[in-house]
Amino acid sequence: MREYIIGVDLGGTSIKFGKFDLDGMLIEKWSIRTNKNDNGDFIIREIGNSIKEHVEVSKILGIGFGVPGPVKNNVVLHCVNIGWGRKDIELEMHYILNDDQIVIKVANDANAAAAGEMYKGVAQGYKSLVMFTLGTGVGGGLIIDGKLIEGVHGAGGELGHIVVDTQHKFKCNCGKRGCLETVASATGIVRLAKHYLSTSKEPTPLRKFFNFSAKKVIDFAKDGDPFCVKVIDESMAYLAMELSAICLSVDPEIVVIGGGISNAGEFIIEKLEKHFLEDIYPFILESNIKLASLGNDAGIYGCAYLIK
Amino acid sequence: MREYIIGVDLGGTSIKFGKFDLDGMLIEKWSIRTNKNDNGDFIIREIGNSIKEHVEVSKILGIGFGVPGPVKNNVVLHCVNIGWGRKDIELEMHYILNDDQIVIKVANDANAAAAGEMYKGVAQGYKSLVMFTLGTGVGGGLIIDGKLIEGVHGAGGELGHIVVDTQHKFKCNCGKRGCLETVASATGIVRLAKHYLSTSKEPTPLRKFFNFSAKKVIDFAKDGDPFCVKVIDESMAYLAMELSAICLSVDPEIVVIGGGISNAGEFIIEKLEKHFLEDIYPFILESNIKLASLGNDAGIYGCAYLIK
Repeated sequence: MREYIIGVDLGGTSIKFGKFDLDGMLIEKWSIRTNKNDNGDFIIREIGNSIKEHVEVSKILGIGFGVPGPVKNNVVLHCVNIGWGRKDIELEMHYILNDDQIVIKVANDANAAAAGEMYKGVAQGYKSLVMFTLGTGVGGGLIIDGKLIEGVHGAGGELGHIVVDTQHKFKCNCGKRGCLETVASATGIVRLAKHYLSTSKEPTPLRKFFNFSAKKVIDFAKDGDPFCVKVIDESMAYLAMELSAICLSVDPEIVVIGGGISNAGEFIIEKLEKHFLEDIYPFILESNIKLASLGNDAGIYGCAYLIK
Repeated sequence: MREYIIGVDLGGTSIKFGKFDLDGMLIEKWSIRTNKNDNGDFIIREIGNSIKEHVEVSKILGIGFGVPGPVKNNVVLHCVNIGWGRKDIELEMHYILNDDQIVIKVANDANAAAAGEMYKGVAQGYKSLVMFTLGTGVGGGLIIDGKLIEGVHGAGGELGHIVVDTQHKFKCNCGKRGCLETVASATGIVRLAKHYLSTSKEPTPLRKFFNFSAKKVIDFAKDGDPFCVKVIDESMAYLAMELSAICLSVDPEIVVIGGGISNAGEFIIEKLEKHFLEDIYPFILESNIKLASLGNDAGIYGCAYLIK
């Protein structure tokens, strides 16, 4: 009897596993370190071994993978930060588990997180959504009619690398300038704050620190420091501009904000919503922006959804 | 025997009709004037009468409508420029034709045009596309997996009213500032040109004219006038910025450019493509931007597709 679904959220530092029943109830979760030696050549075998230690292979209906790179037709195109080029996980897993009846599905990790929030998180009951994961970088996921938008080049939901800032044009890791990630990620908020610290003389408690985190900027903003309020407001204005472009294109039912920055809670949502409502007027007159609810588990839930 | 499909493209000035066989072959087309009296109250009856004059009602399988406003679940939400509020075309057509077996489908006109290009135009064979209609205004249509993206508020494909210009911030008809329509429509190109005529002293043959069309600007640009080249280049840079946002969100197979401006041909596509490839780097390394091929018939073809 095939009675379990496994979700595998493959990150640059750790690999998170979830063992689910067929209704998507999480039974057990665990994680292992990501072994990046030899361009990540050991990763799939180590995933297979870890699954075998936790679950009887003959009871697995399917395994869903979330990977930090573009995916097209179930094949990983590349995952730069773990060293992979093109990779057919399905083929390798069938070989390692010695069972080609197990369904293997692969998706981009940010798309999987969006699916997770739709499956068992804040977006439960909705069929179309856009999700931003505001962490060190900015991840994105897009779902329409219950289906993950993978895109013809696997670039569906690459929301962190849409150019939104034509003023500062900060350099992005991707090689371009002005991507959303440069102004709306945790590092982006710090970058914006440092920019204004050096280009203005406005007083702010932030000046006492040589280095600081995005959380520090948000905390001072919550306390009402005008300098930090302006930084957060500008950051959220960029996010709103991009979000409105997406909403006037595909007009999804719900917008989900996750990642470290979302821990700032409703404060962030209110700032975002104000600009967003201006940008979508008069074609959409309401907003439905919610904080993600599954935290770091969104990925494994989304991977389970792939098998559902 | 139900052997015909009727496409009805409802515009502010005229209503275009197409009579198609079940394979989508256009058999006959005609048009009538749009009667805007009494808030467009006569329009549906006049459409019904015109159809009855051209086709035997009992032979009609279905009628597809493209309307200049948002549509949700087959109901028109509003069409400002013909005076309609909420309108259930299906109900009224069944009554007027005295036949409730006829399938009635309604879509936004720009979405319908995109469907037309996919059904019988330049995007034939593709299942996901984005189309911009660059005319007096900017219309947009988005199709994913063969389905028109209507959106939860009927705002899917409202591509003309995404804010892209944070520099000039020209006022848009919609009430916002800096929408794509203010800089990339025919009127937008003229607006940009007039702006630079008044803010620079750069020589250009355009200065000989008190009033001029977008075509004039494009023609001078094609002849190599540096001033006009810059205007067209800036206009296409805005379009590219928005297009890249859409492509890094849904990553469609093909991009179609239609409307009056598209008559400028490959000259426009080359300008657009240059900026577009920069904006989507390194997530998408190729572009597939094509000129629309059905001209003013895209709408009726798309309406027929709705019934298919």
